[in-house]
Amino acid sequence: MHRTKVRVVEDVLDANNTIARANRDDFDRHGVTVVNLMSAPGAGKTRLLERALDGLAEVGVRVGVLEGDVQGSYDADRLSRLHIPVVQLNTDGGFGGECHLDANMVRSAIPSLPLADLDLLVIENVGNLVCPAEFRVGEDARIMVCSVTEGEDKPLKYPLMFRACELVVVNKIDLLEHLDFDLDLLEAHLEAVHPGVQCMRVSARTAEGIDGLQDWFVQVNQRAAAIA
Amino acid sequence: MHRTKVRVVEDVLDANNTIARANRDDFDRHGVTVVNLMSAPGAGKTRLLERALDGLAEVGVRVGVLEGDVQGSYDADRLSRLHIPVVQLNTDGGFGGECHLDANMVRSAIPSLPLADLDLLVIENVGNLVCPAEFRVGEDARIMVCSVTEGEDKPLKYPLMFRACELVVVNKIDLLEHLDFDLDLLEAHLEAVHPGVQCMRVSARTAEGIDGLQDWFVQVNQRAAAIA
Repeated sequence: MHRTKVRVVEDVLDANNTIARANRDDFDRHGVTVVNLMSAPGAGKTRLLERALDGLAEVGVRVGVLEGDVQGSYDADRLSRLHIPVVQLNTDGGFGGECHLDANMVRSAIPSLPLADLDLLVIENVGNLVCPAEFRVGEDARIMVCSVTEGEDKPLKYPLMFRACELVVVNKIDLLEHLDFDLDLLEAHLEAVHPGVQCMRVSARTAEGIDGLQDWFVQVNQRAAAIA
Repeated sequence: MHRTKVRVVEDVLDANNTIARANRDDFDRHGVTVVNLMSAPGAGKTRLLERALDGLAEVGVRVGVLEGDVQGSYDADRLSRLHIPVVQLNTDGGFGGECHLDANMVRSAIPSLPLADLDLLVIENVGNLVCPAEFRVGEDARIMVCSVTEGEDKPLKYPLMFRACELVVVNKIDLLEHLDFDLDLLEAHLEAVHPGVQCMRVSARTAEGIDGLQDWFVQVNQRAAAIA
């Protein structure tokens, strides 16, 4: 990369981090824990949220979702059936649209979010394994979802994404018996790029392992509340 | 999008198109037909190429691959087993890396490509459903691969990508019986965003439908040769 380009990219990321800190302050002021949910397109983020967020209110966690998409509100419409606050954020703007959420886009959505009524906010990022990892948006923790249909090589090919998270959720394990897929090999690749990262095997379709993800949301919320 | 940002993006895309035309001229001078292959991560682009490019030499099409990845050469290593020229292009540069190939990156790889010995060059783009659609690289045609594991909603959520192609390949149809997936609904969504686009149903795993893709490569090569 040319030196000038490096400087421009550094400036963009510096500016983003400054705005991310302002978001962080707003979330902290309202005692809201924020999780940034990332994956490739079609890994099953929305179906996972349909499963894992349903019932959180009953264990005392008031949850809302900020839904990031290039255009449309298909996922937001699905999640609104959970009767939780869902705000849509579109990244299109005349061209193909942005391939990730940045801190400024999230900032623009804050006035629409009922922060005073939330304990936990999940930000569903645009499906992409590159740029979302580079842009913090003011979150407490990041989840990376990968599906067993995507192949075992993804941590090696997109290492930043698999490093920039506290939890990796391996989804669609109900399909394992129909695939030539080596789950141990995926986890070995994951360990190579992000040693010690927490990893969960789940199926959003059959709900296998979803209780573990639900517990994780409860715990991350308690931990953030304890620090605040 | 703010007016200033629109202008910057327009300038970037204008500069890209100028370089794409220079690439085009170089490919034309050598009589090489170029196909830009795009998809989300894990849709099976490399496995499709392993299947569809094998045997093209026997029908008189000398094929090479330019392999775009953020980092590593995992796919290039796989394809080099076909005993065809494969050149790796990495987009990383100190940060998370670029999420797409642009005309300038492809231009930087041209000296490494044996254009005089090729009829067809396939450029395997970085797995991403947003930015690759915005950057022409000097290609004759674009293929968009989507997998049935990704859900029926992808054309609606990433319409530019599904519009910016001459062929949509729907991969992994061997898994249909194990999924809650409506292939007709996917194709209806596709028809809504890109009326009349050619669509093929294939399985890179079982080779079902691969002969159709192979024929398509032969025909696109003949058509480009006839125009030149």
